[in-house]
Amino acid sequence: MTEPAAAKTALKTQAVETPSWAYGNSGTRFKVFAQAGVPRDPYEKLDDAAKVHEFTGVAPTVALHIPWDRVDDYAALATHAEQRGVRLGAINSNTFQDDDYKLGSICHPDAVVRRKAVDHLLECVDIMDATGSRDLKLWFADGTNYPGQDDIRGRQDRLAEGLAEVYERLGEGQRMLLEYKFFEPAFYATDVPDWGTAYAHCLKLGPKAQVVVDTGHHAPGTNIEFIVATLLREGKLGGFDFNSRFYADDDLMVGAADPFQLFRIMYEVVRGGGFSPEVAFMLDQCHNIEAKIPAIIRSVMNVQEATAKALLVDGDALSAAQRSGDVLEANAVVMDAYNTDVRPLLREVREEMGLDPEPLAAYRRSGWAEKIVAERVGGEQAGWGA
Amino acid sequence: MTEPAAAKTALKTQAVETPSWAYGNSGTRFKVFAQAGVPRDPYEKLDDAAKVHEFTGVAPTVALHIPWDRVDDYAALATHAEQRGVRLGAINSNTFQDDDYKLGSICHPDAVVRRKAVDHLLECVDIMDATGSRDLKLWFADGTNYPGQDDIRGRQDRLAEGLAEVYERLGEGQRMLLEYKFFEPAFYATDVPDWGTAYAHCLKLGPKAQVVVDTGHHAPGTNIEFIVATLLREGKLGGFDFNSRFYADDDLMVGAADPFQLFRIMYEVVRGGGFSPEVAFMLDQCHNIEAKIPAIIRSVMNVQEATAKALLVDGDALSAAQRSGDVLEANAVVMDAYNTDVRPLLREVREEMGLDPEPLAAYRRSGWAEKIVAERVGGEQAGWGA
Amino acid sequence: MTEPAAAKTALKTQAVETPSWAYGNSGTRFKVFAQAGVPRDPYEKLDDAAKVHEFTGVAPTVALHIPWDRVDDYAALATHAEQRGVRLGAINSNTFQDDDYKLGSICHPDAVVRRKAVDHLLECVDIMDATGSRDLKLWFADGTNYPGQDDIRGRQDRLAEGLAEVYERLGEGQRMLLEYKFFEPAFYATDVPDWGTAYAHCLKLGPKAQVVVDTGHHAPGTNIEFIVATLLREGKLGGFDFNSRFYADDDLMVGAADPFQLFRIMYEVVRGGGFSPEVAFMLDQCHNIEAKIPAIIRSVMNVQEATAKALLVDGDALSAAQRSGDVLEANAVVMDAYNTDVRPLLREVREEMGLDPEPLAAYRRSGWAEKIVAERVGGEQAGWGA
Amino acid sequence: MTEPAAAKTALKTQAVETPSWAYGNSGTRFKVFAQAGVPRDPYEKLDDAAKVHEFTGVAPTVALHIPWDRVDDYAALATHAEQRGVRLGAINSNTFQDDDYKLGSICHPDAVVRRKAVDHLLECVDIMDATGSRDLKLWFADGTNYPGQDDIRGRQDRLAEGLAEVYERLGEGQRMLLEYKFFEPAFYATDVPDWGTAYAHCLKLGPKAQVVVDTGHHAPGTNIEFIVATLLREGKLGGFDFNSRFYADDDLMVGAADPFQLFRIMYEVVRGGGFSPEVAFMLDQCHNIEAKIPAIIRSVMNVQEATAKALLVDGDALSAAQRSGDVLEANAVVMDAYNTDVRPLLREVREEMGLDPEPLAAYRRSGWAEKIVAERVGGEQAGWGA
Repeated sequence: MTEPAAAKTALKTQAVETPSWAYGNSGTRFKVFAQAGVPRDPYEKLDDAAKVHEFTGVAPTVALHIPWDRVDDYAALATHAEQRGVRLGAINSNTFQDDDYKLGSICHPDAVVRRKAVDHLLECVDIMDATGSRDLKLWFADGTNYPGQDDIRGRQDRLAEGLAEVYERLGEGQRMLLEYKFFEPAFYATDVPDWGTAYAHCLKLGPKAQVVVDTGHHAPGTNIEFIVATLLREGKLGGFDFNSRFYADDDLMVGAADPFQLFRIMYEVVRGGGFSPEVAFMLDQCHNIEAKIPAIIRSVMNVQEATAKALLVDGDALSAAQRSGDVLEANAVVMDAYNTDVRPLLREVREEMGLDPEPLAAYRRSGWAEKIVAERVGGEQAGWGA
Repeated sequence: MTEPAAAKTALKTQAVETPSWAYGNSGTRFKVFAQAGVPRDPYEKLDDAAKVHEFTGVAPTVALHIPWDRVDDYAALATHAEQRGVRLGAINSNTFQDDDYKLGSICHPDAVVRRKAVDHLLECVDIMDATGSRDLKLWFADGTNYPGQDDIRGRQDRLAEGLAEVYERLGEGQRMLLEYKFFEPAFYATDVPDWGTAYAHCLKLGPKAQVVVDTGHHAPGTNIEFIVATLLREGKLGGFDFNSRFYADDDLMVGAADPFQLFRIMYEVVRGGGFSPEVAFMLDQCHNIEAKIPAIIRSVMNVQEATAKALLVDGDALSAAQRSGDVLEANAVVMDAYNTDVRPLLREVREEMGLDPEPLAAYRRSGWAEKIVAERVGGEQAGWGA
Repeated sequence: MTEPAAAKTALKTQAVETPSWAYGNSGTRFKVFAQAGVPRDPYEKLDDAAKVHEFTGVAPTVALHIPWDRVDDYAALATHAEQRGVRLGAINSNTFQDDDYKLGSICHPDAVVRRKAVDHLLECVDIMDATGSRDLKLWFADGTNYPGQDDIRGRQDRLAEGLAEVYERLGEGQRMLLEYKFFEPAFYATDVPDWGTAYAHCLKLGPKAQVVVDTGHHAPGTNIEFIVATLLREGKLGGFDFNSRFYADDDLMVGAADPFQLFRIMYEVVRGGGFSPEVAFMLDQCHNIEAKIPAIIRSVMNVQEATAKALLVDGDALSAAQRSGDVLEANAVVMDAYNTDVRPLLREVREEMGLDPEPLAAYRRSGWAEKIVAERVGGEQAGWGA
Repeated sequence: MTEPAAAKTALKTQAVETPSWAYGNSGTRFKVFAQAGVPRDPYEKLDDAAKVHEFTGVAPTVALHIPWDRVDDYAALATHAEQRGVRLGAINSNTFQDDDYKLGSICHPDAVVRRKAVDHLLECVDIMDATGSRDLKLWFADGTNYPGQDDIRGRQDRLAEGLAEVYERLGEGQRMLLEYKFFEPAFYATDVPDWGTAYAHCLKLGPKAQVVVDTGHHAPGTNIEFIVATLLREGKLGGFDFNSRFYADDDLMVGAADPFQLFRIMYEVVRGGGFSPEVAFMLDQCHNIEAKIPAIIRSVMNVQEATAKALLVDGDALSAAQRSGDVLEANAVVMDAYNTDVRPLLREVREEMGLDPEPLAAYRRSGWAEKIVAERVGGEQAGWGA
């Protein structure tokens, strides 16, 4: 087994990016239930994200979403973040909430709409220049609801053309992370529905284009850790959008639905050399009915616990069992690590980092929850439509 | 084969109820794209529904949704409908859009919220008395998002208690139709997730409680026509909510995703004696990106076409092949009916009913679409939140 | 939290029935890989099952499968079992491997075949009388591969008729456990495809008819613990066939694919009063590529671990969090129990029962594996077709 | 709309390859039901395949499966085929039925087993040289049943290495078609589980390596026509294995489960230039309970019907509707073609080809079914294990 000491060293270097939008209101198509104390602007979102980092120690960056987080002065926003101990992370584009995008954005049949969408993506790169962000995360809601509605192949051509223009605009050290999604909001054909499509586009674009795996965006039964292993082998895994799902893109707290799956994913990350800055670990979740900041802290801890278990897999024993074809023993080596209660280890990690060993309890004691409920009165709460 | 003449007679008696909310705006959690000309109140919804009936001849009733269709004077609303050639149909309750319902309605852990939900259902029965509606359609968004969030079994107890109170309130000739749904908006456990749960509750409630099958509310791969056959055999099929899906509850036009499945469902309806007034045939769809009234006309026609094919199955030949164990021949009998182009037959049906044989073309020529765009200016468009 | 002492007491009373057929060869439609040392008759299967009980202490009974385990003298077989420290358990019928059953058994369109199938079931009750078995476990491969192949509803009528005849034959204290399965080997419509169908039949048959939940027999995404909670609430949960699946009815070791799901199931069992002799806990697995006896020991241990975690859920804290609507806290109470490493507790349980704390290591040291490979030479290995 | 005359011309050039193994016995893991008259050797399989071509006119080639169709003299086998009016088609390898392949073949952890597997593939290329076959079709049952059982990434490395050796051996005009499959017989991780994996390997191998789409090998809800369109766009669609499924890899007659899906697939084929000799159209089905030769004739006809409908889509009207963003009209253009009864057109096609317009009736009248039952007595029936 990996020495716990080595595991602890690795765990201290972990970084999980939290998304600005998870601090705002969200919901289903049926209802958005507003919560008291929710941020009203990007600055307040950063304040909340800073609390998550303060108590976990491993959430140092915050992803922005444009236009939800559009501000006049991104340098000021970055400074605000740094003053609170965090940094701005990936820039997420939004090409699905403008009325023009009813039939798509970058894949729309009308060149005028495509131009608008590409211009938005180029604007996002401008923002990256201003914020110093490395990653442009692209998720397209593009697709069709009915057979025949548009030409599947023609939409791929348009997608390739639009991505190429944005790729060209990327500066030194900047990357484009292309996300895929099985379905929703498109209900018949989605233009980037699976890792294969994202991979094929990224391959043609070049080394700055990488695939991002959202753990909620797969068909039922898909073996996600296989995709992770394959993308790492191909040098094309750019990052994760973590969340969890029982059914579709439920966007629950990562690890809540299938903690064993999360462990298997993290094992392939570790095994494939993906526990490195080249792979961005990001949350992308909706806390529709649960308190948002504690849910995000819990999510960060869930990633930590899965990572700790993955680090504890005894690689030598596993390889030996695999080579000898001992199915039960090989499985047992993996299960031994999974069945280990790593919470004591993580408490030690936190204490050695100068943190409270119990982030949730510490957050609750901090009074932040009460403070934001009391102070954030008036204004408009942030949400998906904000 | 059933004589085409007999099939035509049956088709002329068909009745497909259209839902008031399908005439309003709808969308996904990501975006609602507003359409020009959408109704601004229940009266305008009825005006649109009347157009669907005018051109198809088989959509004589309109389902209401409370509170979306709440008016001061339901008798006036009923009169408005009748003046336009339609009638008010099922009353649909809504216990998912009030802030109190974040953790459930009739199954909520707090008795105060449950009381509010049951009171709403009782109010719906009052409205049925006023409108003369026969059916109270109940769909509950109740459920939980996380394991442990609430007690699965305790919620069933509360559900049974609430339903029993509403059941007692039903008058002579009134029914309660209980709908089930696999998931959404609840993401871990839904309180009425499958036909078995709905059936078990209806059985205990009594003969006025019946199960309603929404064709979009099943797990992947579920054989819906089996459920239809089983519920008819048990005397517990109260009706359908028609729509279609490729993935989850996509709410596309019925027959759009899998027309062969719709045919198989209608075959079991016909075979099981369900083509009768005891089984309510209702649409429950969302026309997020397509024009609403034409989409509803197209949907009604899709149901007609599937029904026509089901009526054309040669029952004698089928039984003979089934009895003799001739797998290919039995399947061929069914496929022969399915592969028949029934559009000419339906054109005849319409002509014999004094209608234009091409409802969509006739609607387009009518100028209604242009008229409502021009006239329905100002006010607030109806939608799920209206 | 439940006192560990109380949990240990409960765990000592646990009983997991192992199936005779899991000791024989099995495989997929593509290939059966034979293993050395596999039993060649029912007596040798019992010898192996006795070893599982010897080392785990909680596998005291063995399910038989007729005709695979047909012997001339069942009393002698029972004595053989008792001499080795185990007892005969449920009798499993087989109406899927005779050439006559190509189009079904109890639901077959031909009355002659149905008679044969029912006679086989009646024979199984005779065997129960001889073995003293309480439970007749019924799984029907009946169904159709193509739409139209047979009449869905007619098959339900035949099923009801056949079951009723068998039910009448049951003696005092005997039960009929009806299993459902989503699909396979039937590929279009299965005659008992879901819990609702099994429940409806059992309800009509009477109190001796109970539903059995095979954890591998559900549509993708089905919430199995909900079904467990519901059947317990209805007084209709007769038992489990445990195994696990990633895709379809993969029949892997229970707990191997989704240990969190197994824990949630066991939690509902405990919470609903199902941890009692009225609910039979049985394995139904295939060890196609892994060593069989160790795999079964591992499976029994997996059930123990899930049960231990379920017993450790702090019911008071959970109820309090649920009542107060604290989603995160309620989930946390459940996750705390799940994240506990219960292996030390189970080692104590075994030591207090006079067993080796490590059943697999003890089995390996026992020499049984080498002994059966050396001795079981010649003859025909047991398997699904034996 | 495409002129019916043009559609007829195209339909006369269609070629659907039938698989030798579909003429033999097959079944599920539960039971293989033998049928009277089934071939006993490769020569008799060709005799049956020739009948399918004789009556349909569009099944001119027969796929072989090695070792099931191993003969001493492939030239003699080819001559036998030609004398009956057909030709030998793709060579299918088999690396899943030898005891050595329990843990994999080309991906096996042991180099000795991998060598054996690659040698078998090289032998298949030798056979291609002898038969004049163009395509080597590779399907690997390789994978793992339990997490940890083997190293996911290491298996990919071995796969790449083995494929590269075989690729090098391919002669002028020969191709390698790599098939993917979601799951089964591997139950945790399959080594080529999706089109992305097959595509990535084929891309590295070179232009002679192409992906083959088996219509039954996808996760629930997968949009197969999207994959077809994408692979055609990438120049990497080598062919199809046609069959249909309701649940998993059910291997039912193509078009039996979802004829609308088959039509959509054929539409993308036509639209993307795939209706050409570069794309191999092959059946890969199991006729477990239905008569085999008529089922294959029916399957060929199903492909014809779907193709005819796809050819009848009015491309100009569709493009116009798509460009204008008219969702309903674009969908209607496609549905108009689908709803057309193309059986009269295909009867004309057959008559113009000098065939009986009703292939199944003609086959039944031919007496072939009775003849093979009478003559094929003794010997061992062909099947998956033959």
